[in-house]
Amino acid sequence: MSSLEQLNRCDTAAFVDTLQGIYEHSPWIPQRAAALRPFRNLTALKLALQDIVVAATREEQLGLVRAHPELAGKAALAGTLTEESTGEQAKAGLHLCSPEEFARLQQLNADYHARFGFPFIVAVKGPTGNGLTRQEIISRFARRLKNLPEDELAEALRQIGRIAEIRLNSLFDVTPALGNTIMEWAEEIGQWSDDEQGLTCTFMSAAHRRTADRLRQWMRDAGMQAHIDAVGNVVGRYLSHDPHAKTLLTGSHYDTVRNGGKYDGREGILLPIAVVRHLHERGETLPFHLEVIAFSEEEGVRFKSTFLGSNAVSGHFDPAVLDLCDRDGVSMREALTAAGHDVAAIPAIARDPASLLGYVEVHIEQGPVLLQRGLPAGIVTSIAGASRYLVELRGVASHSGTTPMSMRKDAAAAAAEILLYVEQRCAENQEDSLVGTVGQLQVPNGSTNVIPGACVFSLDIRAARDEVRDAAVADVLQRLEQICERRRIESTVEKTVCAAAAPCAPWLMQQLSAATERAGVPPFALASGAGHDAMAIAAISDVAMLFTRCGNGGISHNPLETMTADDAEVSAQILLDFLRHFSTASSAS
Amino acid sequence: MSSLEQLNRCDTAAFVDTLQGIYEHSPWIPQRAAALRPFRNLTALKLALQDIVVAATREEQLGLVRAHPELAGKAALAGTLTEESTGEQAKAGLHLCSPEEFARLQQLNADYHARFGFPFIVAVKGPTGNGLTRQEIISRFARRLKNLPEDELAEALRQIGRIAEIRLNSLFDVTPALGNTIMEWAEEIGQWSDDEQGLTCTFMSAAHRRTADRLRQWMRDAGMQAHIDAVGNVVGRYLSHDPHAKTLLTGSHYDTVRNGGKYDGREGILLPIAVVRHLHERGETLPFHLEVIAFSEEEGVRFKSTFLGSNAVSGHFDPAVLDLCDRDGVSMREALTAAGHDVAAIPAIARDPASLLGYVEVHIEQGPVLLQRGLPAGIVTSIAGASRYLVELRGVASHSGTTPMSMRKDAAAAAAEILLYVEQRCAENQEDSLVGTVGQLQVPNGSTNVIPGACVFSLDIRAARDEVRDAAVADVLQRLEQICERRRIESTVEKTVCAAAAPCAPWLMQQLSAATERAGVPPFALASGAGHDAMAIAAISDVAMLFTRCGNGGISHNPLETMTADDAEVSAQILLDFLRHFSTASSAS
Repeated sequence: MSSLEQLNRCDTAAFVDTLQGIYEHSPWIPQRAAALRPFRNLTALKLALQDIVVAATREEQLGLVRAHPELAGKAALAGTLTEESTGEQAKAGLHLCSPEEFARLQQLNADYHARFGFPFIVAVKGPTGNGLTRQEIISRFARRLKNLPEDELAEALRQIGRIAEIRLNSLFDVTPALGNTIMEWAEEIGQWSDDEQGLTCTFMSAAHRRTADRLRQWMRDAGMQAHIDAVGNVVGRYLSHDPHAKTLLTGSHYDTVRNGGKYDGREGILLPIAVVRHLHERGETLPFHLEVIAFSEEEGVRFKSTFLGSNAVSGHFDPAVLDLCDRDGVSMREALTAAGHDVAAIPAIARDPASLLGYVEVHIEQGPVLLQRGLPAGIVTSIAGASRYLVELRGVASHSGTTPMSMRKDAAAAAAEILLYVEQRCAENQEDSLVGTVGQLQVPNGSTNVIPGACVFSLDIRAARDEVRDAAVADVLQRLEQICERRRIESTVEKTVCAAAAPCAPWLMQQLSAATERAGVPPFALASGAGHDAMAIAAISDVAMLFTRCGNGGISHNPLETMTADDAEVSAQILLDFLRHFSTASSAS
Repeated sequence: MSSLEQLNRCDTAAFVDTLQGIYEHSPWIPQRAAALRPFRNLTALKLALQDIVVAATREEQLGLVRAHPELAGKAALAGTLTEESTGEQAKAGLHLCSPEEFARLQQLNADYHARFGFPFIVAVKGPTGNGLTRQEIISRFARRLKNLPEDELAEALRQIGRIAEIRLNSLFDVTPALGNTIMEWAEEIGQWSDDEQGLTCTFMSAAHRRTADRLRQWMRDAGMQAHIDAVGNVVGRYLSHDPHAKTLLTGSHYDTVRNGGKYDGREGILLPIAVVRHLHERGETLPFHLEVIAFSEEEGVRFKSTFLGSNAVSGHFDPAVLDLCDRDGVSMREALTAAGHDVAAIPAIARDPASLLGYVEVHIEQGPVLLQRGLPAGIVTSIAGASRYLVELRGVASHSGTTPMSMRKDAAAAAAEILLYVEQRCAENQEDSLVGTVGQLQVPNGSTNVIPGACVFSLDIRAARDEVRDAAVADVLQRLEQICERRRIESTVEKTVCAAAAPCAPWLMQQLSAATERAGVPPFALASGAGHDAMAIAAISDVAMLFTRCGNGGISHNPLETMTADDAEVSAQILLDFLRHFSTASSAS
């Protein structure tokens, strides 16, 4: 066991010696880190070490990767490797492989080496630190084999960083206790699904109601008053020592998309419960009431009614949605009544804005920005607004061999030109998180030897600021018209979505930034391209959001969505610190 | 009745007066034509008049179009229009419309006028001159309503040209006798199909054998020796007065694609039979044997064996195709045997190249070039070679809102860039008829809010000269690689077709050009982007081709494929004249 204080003070040789074994046979990493002392805390040290790896030359990176043993290779199984590596692989049960599993791993090793030229590396202790199963390891292996080479090298370095993080925790005898709790809780409610496979938790299903009950119990165990309201929101209040205090809101949603991830929404519920439990265990109260709301519905899967829970809280619940029916013909009103809810009580859910201090939502990023920046958390500047269109272009289908280039009216060529303009135009404004995507693109019934007579595509443009998005949309639609006119193509443009951006309150962002900095993480601001409950709550309160790094390349709305216990710990520590330092002083200014 | 000689000599006023009524209320057309006299023949006069219409200002064109009565409009039905128009509409039975048909026509008139701002014009006497049915008129009306405005104005002017052509035939008491015969014959065998709907005539089907029998009969009636060979080719020989003469070949295929056109292939059989009958009726023989071959198979529909008939004639019949089976499991060998053919006799079909003078194939263009140039016929320079590929691009699918533009690996954006390069690169070389097409294009399972992780597309590149095509293919594949490397996209490129070009023999082209000029048509050279039997015969003989203008925007492999009796007449007159002037003198040089 070491202490960071000792490490910050000792000479370079002792520093390097202490950190020996954190990175496999690569003393150059602690050597470079020594010069960066002192480190504010363990998180800061971890980030510094990993930054050194990322900034290293390609030769150094490949040397580091190649210093690792092959997974379930002969050396690993014979125990001739470093005790650490062998022990980690043994703990994953890789020495207990069946002959089929062993053969599969050998084939994967061979294919992987042939494709990338270095051994496959995975942190076998996994995101929770409790270890991956052999089956999980094999499926990750197979999946990563399909990565692009450059991405896979970056992933290998991230896995090395994760291995180093776990070894550092062990070296400093540190346990991410809040993070572990959040991961365990997410695992437990992640088992309750509408379907047999994967995680699907839709509004008022059995799994959904079971989840609500468990959340209420955890809230109560954490020292909160808790109830389930008339739209299924689970509301926990951690009362202030000042009975006249106003209320700070936090929370997120507990419903999921079909076959979704365990952390989307749920992190933002479980994390504040764990934080409140931590406060409660220490007898700490806050100078304001803290309300953790688990919103019953945000994804809109069952009734196509997004932001149901947060709209009820903001007083924007539309009674018309009660008559929406699911695919079995059950109306929302029937589903709520069957679950014992009184729909007449829904309007009373609306909060009085005067009673609120603000709303702070923690959420998994659902994108790759923090992952690629090597940061465990980031502060959201704005939830992007979105404009969506469906476009149909009509040219003239004709024979690819007999129609000269100058006589064509090629609908796909027009679409290609528009697509590239969308890409170029949206790349012009990175600071406002402007993004433009053609996600659907198709020549209906296309043939190799027929010039496309039609082409249909979707258009999705988002930005942190509405004026930025509006300008981009106007430019794209104008260019679309010009391109079609020049190419003599007819177009139909149908607007399907137009949602305004929800900017975060600077005073809340500042306090989140300060807490992030104190956690040893350089504050990094990013927009949210996806929608969140904070958009709805913005109608009655200043809002802010804290993002937690999303693993697996930033994938979400997918069973592969992942985060680590250590990253959850960092976000929890940031929220805890934010709550302890929270002040409305700058709010009044 | 007028004679062209008189018209060529009279004063302008008399010229204009004679041609009054050819174009509706538009004396400026004959006024301008008067200055272009003398005209070589009626075809030359028709082309000159139509060229004046095409070269007129948009105001003049719209004036001409608007001078026409609305179809089945009140004026037409009340008989208050020019006798000509009323008579033509009456002949199509438009005054006998049912109330439903009348209502439908009124709606079409209203929609058409709203879309284009001028009345719908159709030559109600149709491509044969025998008149369209009311149902044909209504379906053309509905179809043309979907045209792009610019294209529809051009089509209206072409219909006016067709009306003028029919009126001129009447004025000069000229009948396109050969053209009419060809159209009637095509109509007769066009009724015999494998399916109940449309025209499908596949190798050795009942319809196919019936068609062969009829062709043999027509050949015999025209004064030829005729037989059906062991692969079903119908071979007619019009013997020379010189028994030691060599043989000039002509012909095309009589099989069709599924639901194909009546003229594709068949024109090139029926036209020379009509020409031979014309010679035979006049007791004219030729200084060479003329062989008309109706090839049994070119499209490859039933057994996926293209150019079957012409490969047998060129000695390139592959015996392995006898074992190919159709979708019912019947082998080609079984199909031939069941039809009474002796497969052992197939090799003997091969011609001795030393006995041949050349091969000249007449074919409908199957494209829009002659139609847009306003020419009834053109001389083929080369049958283009083709390279085809299937391309799959793989990027990374990620959230359209949360993935910054700079972190994307968008497979569709890469495909778009490649598509536009194909278009630009192939437009560089019009003289070699270089064309490049992305006909299939798809983001598999694309979603509006997901960046395309994959995109699949086809690539079809053709050119009259192989080195031109090879250079374009190399450039496209190189650029594809560069684009994918820059965008960090992986690609799989699969070559599916690579066929060499078949250039036409200059000495045959020259003689076809001279005959075309004598027919009153400016010789115009164009490549064939589609494959033809001439490609196979090129293995044993110099080849040439004459294209006939294709109506309906150049559509083919479709029931809408069309040509006019007058255009068939022009092509027949060119072939007749070519045969009468044929000389091998330049062949030896």
